[in-house]
Amino acid sequence: MVLIFNQNREFDIIAIGRACIDLNANEYNRPMEETMTFTKYVGGSPANIAIGSSKLGLKAGFIGKIPQDQHGRFIKQYMSEKGVDTSNMVFDTEGRKAGLAFTEILSPSECSILMYRDHVADLYLEPSEVNEDYIKNTKILLVSGTALALSPSREAVFKAISLAKKHAVKVVFELDYRPYTWHSQVETSIYYSLVAQLSNVVIGTRDEYDVMENLATPGNNDDTVKHLFAHDAELVVIKHGVDGSYAYEPNGATYHGQAYKTQVLKTFGAGDSYASAFLYAIVNGKDYETALKYGSASASIVVSKHSSSEAMPTVQDIEDLIKDRS
Amino acid sequence: MVLIFNQNREFDIIAIGRACIDLNANEYNRPMEETMTFTKYVGGSPANIAIGSSKLGLKAGFIGKIPQDQHGRFIKQYMSEKGVDTSNMVFDTEGRKAGLAFTEILSPSECSILMYRDHVADLYLEPSEVNEDYIKNTKILLVSGTALALSPSREAVFKAISLAKKHAVKVVFELDYRPYTWHSQVETSIYYSLVAQLSNVVIGTRDEYDVMENLATPGNNDDTVKHLFAHDAELVVIKHGVDGSYAYEPNGATYHGQAYKTQVLKTFGAGDSYASAFLYAIVNGKDYETALKYGSASASIVVSKHSSSEAMPTVQDIEDLIKDRS
Amino acid sequence: MVLIFNQNREFDIIAIGRACIDLNANEYNRPMEETMTFTKYVGGSPANIAIGSSKLGLKAGFIGKIPQDQHGRFIKQYMSEKGVDTSNMVFDTEGRKAGLAFTEILSPSECSILMYRDHVADLYLEPSEVNEDYIKNTKILLVSGTALALSPSREAVFKAISLAKKHAVKVVFELDYRPYTWHSQVETSIYYSLVAQLSNVVIGTRDEYDVMENLATPGNNDDTVKHLFAHDAELVVIKHGVDGSYAYEPNGATYHGQAYKTQVLKTFGAGDSYASAFLYAIVNGKDYETALKYGSASASIVVSKHSSSEAMPTVQDIEDLIKDRS
Amino acid sequence: MVLIFNQNREFDIIAIGRACIDLNANEYNRPMEETMTFTKYVGGSPANIAIGSSKLGLKAGFIGKIPQDQHGRFIKQYMSEKGVDTSNMVFDTEGRKAGLAFTEILSPSECSILMYRDHVADLYLEPSEVNEDYIKNTKILLVSGTALALSPSREAVFKAISLAKKHAVKVVFELDYRPYTWHSQVETSIYYSLVAQLSNVVIGTRDEYDVMENLATPGNNDDTVKHLFAHDAELVVIKHGVDGSYAYEPNGATYHGQAYKTQVLKTFGAGDSYASAFLYAIVNGKDYETALKYGSASASIVVSKHSSSEAMPTVQDIEDLIKDRS
Repeated sequence: MVLIFNQNREFDIIAIGRACIDLNANEYNRPMEETMTFTKYVGGSPANIAIGSSKLGLKAGFIGKIPQDQHGRFIKQYMSEKGVDTSNMVFDTEGRKAGLAFTEILSPSECSILMYRDHVADLYLEPSEVNEDYIKNTKILLVSGTALALSPSREAVFKAISLAKKHAVKVVFELDYRPYTWHSQVETSIYYSLVAQLSNVVIGTRDEYDVMENLATPGNNDDTVKHLFAHDAELVVIKHGVDGSYAYEPNGATYHGQAYKTQVLKTFGAGDSYASAFLYAIVNGKDYETALKYGSASASIVVSKHSSSEAMPTVQDIEDLIKDRS
Repeated sequence: MVLIFNQNREFDIIAIGRACIDLNANEYNRPMEETMTFTKYVGGSPANIAIGSSKLGLKAGFIGKIPQDQHGRFIKQYMSEKGVDTSNMVFDTEGRKAGLAFTEILSPSECSILMYRDHVADLYLEPSEVNEDYIKNTKILLVSGTALALSPSREAVFKAISLAKKHAVKVVFELDYRPYTWHSQVETSIYYSLVAQLSNVVIGTRDEYDVMENLATPGNNDDTVKHLFAHDAELVVIKHGVDGSYAYEPNGATYHGQAYKTQVLKTFGAGDSYASAFLYAIVNGKDYETALKYGSASASIVVSKHSSSEAMPTVQDIEDLIKDRS
Repeated sequence: MVLIFNQNREFDIIAIGRACIDLNANEYNRPMEETMTFTKYVGGSPANIAIGSSKLGLKAGFIGKIPQDQHGRFIKQYMSEKGVDTSNMVFDTEGRKAGLAFTEILSPSECSILMYRDHVADLYLEPSEVNEDYIKNTKILLVSGTALALSPSREAVFKAISLAKKHAVKVVFELDYRPYTWHSQVETSIYYSLVAQLSNVVIGTRDEYDVMENLATPGNNDDTVKHLFAHDAELVVIKHGVDGSYAYEPNGATYHGQAYKTQVLKTFGAGDSYASAFLYAIVNGKDYETALKYGSASASIVVSKHSSSEAMPTVQDIEDLIKDRS
Repeated sequence: MVLIFNQNREFDIIAIGRACIDLNANEYNRPMEETMTFTKYVGGSPANIAIGSSKLGLKAGFIGKIPQDQHGRFIKQYMSEKGVDTSNMVFDTEGRKAGLAFTEILSPSECSILMYRDHVADLYLEPSEVNEDYIKNTKILLVSGTALALSPSREAVFKAISLAKKHAVKVVFELDYRPYTWHSQVETSIYYSLVAQLSNVVIGTRDEYDVMENLATPGNNDDTVKHLFAHDAELVVIKHGVDGSYAYEPNGATYHGQAYKTQVLKTFGAGDSYASAFLYAIVNGKDYETALKYGSASASIVVSKHSSSEAMPTVQDIEDLIKDRS
């Protein structure tokens, strides 16, 4: 099966949530204490997905709040240059700052992030800053889980979902779980469940679904999808790292996509590039089996490079890699 | 039609939300500046409904957080004496206080409340303090809208609703809108809509539904019920003050109940006594037309007396009034 | 010796700090859980001192912030009726409330208070709301320690002290220590020390001086006064409960005043009535020995009555009691 | 005259306040939006002064709170390597972060800073983390004005000053005014005045003294020093940018030091390098005229280089420049 999108929409995808700054270590394979210089990139899961989608040829837009400072202006300008519509990115008027992520690459498999997320502008997006006319003009509304972590951003997302459902826009929920900002895993579980029940497509890692289900030990995919298909879900994607990813349909059909091995530089950005390419594929009517390959190939490319946003691949890059490995 | 409840349940109704202190002016029909003494009562909509239901003979329980002080102990003791199960009322351990409502009765039709609601214990109920074993033992979970106003009480309510639905407990949502505490009416509208969509029975005044729908001008009942019946609602009650109240069913059936005139002392407590008696009636298998009469009669009795909780009528009081007026 | 005040001043005393509401149990000698009615009075140490001073014939004024509600208007009107100038009492514009003190009288010697002090209006007095023209027109600026507990009230008091010193107004510091609101006793100690070093007269109980000196075990008066006389102090009063009170001068002179026994109803209000009468005496040029008697007599009268503010004695009451007991 | 220091002290100078991270633009003379890489340095006025003093040969220590993360560990390690005693730098246990300063160099004379100061670790230093045994072992306690901006750091500084005065340690107050964090200029003025009145040496720019005096238009030095000499001050230094700096003594003696012109890269770090060298000079018994030259020369060297901390000069650098220009 394929997902049916409304065709007469100006945008293929509009993402809502955070657009931030990544400061990536220039000297790596060492503790950050020994890193002396950093390179600046746009970051944040939904911003990366919008940028990645745009680079693949989708018409992408973004709803979010950015600081009225040098970092905020850089974010808007960069996204605009990459083809993302920034007309619904609003400047914060209270002096709030952009979120920062200093990346530490101890080794290709040991990466960590030093986060600055206190009072960041993106979490102060107001419901009143979400416009119905914008949302009704897209095929997909992409919701990032981190945007649910705090009010008023949480309510802005609920409003956006409500408008999307009113106008038959497909709601895609990328779980994108980051423990900072949340008060507790129980709180995360409550809001992830509410949003997942309202979403048409849910994408996340098995670990992230465990958070959504508030499980102490790993859950199983059958239980997860059974619960979601009792509500509005039409497609559920569960990622299992090196074991590849699975797509589930309400009719019981299941698809498996392998992971593509690569020379890993760092693990950041894998999920965002996966989502961009997977959504590109389904918007373009490709079957789910192919979409899983696109996602995996795109992730494989980004983890071999220094940034998350700047490294987003082209369709050609993705198709070349899939052909090479088949 | 009648609502079908699970019969093998220990409790008829468990209410979740605030239990507070009312300080009612002893000298009234004057500004509060000239009131020199106050009488103390238990107050708070869901506490009043639990007390009122218990007085009518329902087996009632309560989930809420109360202060570890003289007011908190009074609340628990009073509710227990009135027959309400208080085993799931937890004491706050952070020094938070009971909400206070100083009532001002300028005239029977001009009443106002001076509220103390900053950092009150009831809004700090945690999801972890909501017990599945308790909820699965009731026919009705009564949710008060004010408990949605702030975290973590908001999340505790979402958890309670989720548990209720898991165990086929009917969720009754009493809108109980109080502007204080809420950041904005848009925020109220978002959470009222989410909860109303999950509820089996919704009860409120027309004004409260307008808040839920975020309307600037009064909405109409047909639109309201059409939206709710597209989700989980089985019964919608809309109150129109002196014009009486309406009950709506998904099958299109509509019932109207008149308001009973009385010698009004103050307007407080009308909604809580209405809900107690209406729910008493439907739990006891009475038809909706009769249930509307019970609600109106109960409200009529309470507005003629000094308190909200202490003044809750008996079944005999209600039936006598209905007989008198028919 | 006597303290020399500037004579050409409109006011004898201007107090700065909180004016609140006391709700005194009408049914007492029992736990508050069993108290069903409360009587409303104006309360708060500096408000009580202003009222008490005014009743004794001093020209008193007040600087403070009160809520724009029924309680705030009652406070202002009551103080005005008692002769206190309220021209510099400002209404809060942010919806903050009056502090509340529910008094519990378990027995004459076991009294406790249930306090509502979260976000109370009085602690939000701003430095910009302290007027130089007002302060330069008084003999005494009375500072209450509780007004130092939180910003911006803390800074408003520092500004008032700075203006008082600029205009040769005597600064009287009533320690008035209440543990609530303060983050820690160390914090209290730091600000009490800063203010005591700037004050001309310091009045408190031995326990309160121990808090100021951050002592774990009781300190001794000689150390206390030695430290204060190294700064701006001209007079230090230390109260020892039933053992009476002491006044110290920089020249080494020490005076002792006995406590007057009475039929105690409750312990509240003793310190405020003491300060009113002591200051009345020294403003009227009485010697310190006499002033100590006035303080003790006034305290003795108030603890035998139901309220703190309303019970403030007249000069005749005080002088009668002193004559009776001598 | 010269300032007399206690000689039998282990430390020459202990600074209290913030130690942070500077992220200096590698590509400059352009808006920060166009800067793609940043170099990391230790920053923060008192940290820079401790590092600068140590490099000049003083025995320096530091009291402050740093994050328990990669940035915090880098700060501690770097300062330790530069000879600063870090035994009294405590790690934050609440997940707070290091302050960040992204520097923008539009042109040598147009520099700005993008600050991250929300909930930074340094402002959470507790009074209990200030040790009497440490402070009594130094000649100078250097207090940075920014450490007064918020509680509990504010109280930690008051405690440190109180301990310094108890042990005859000279308190040097570097005004170091940064508008962020402060609620208002009135608040700044109140605390700057309290601390300046307790200090032996006060150092700042004319602009900073205007903030301390809460002046709308520039004040004059004579008024400033007259006020300070009425309290504990023994030496007041007022800097006038390109017009050089002035040192004032209570006896009326005034000294003027010229500014040394240089090829300016950026203006950051000038004040910190000035203070380091000035204090080095007076600790070493040089007269005030010479000390002013040391300060100016040191500032001149740092503004011609990329960092504030790493660029701190040696005594040889300073003396060479003074000789060159005389």
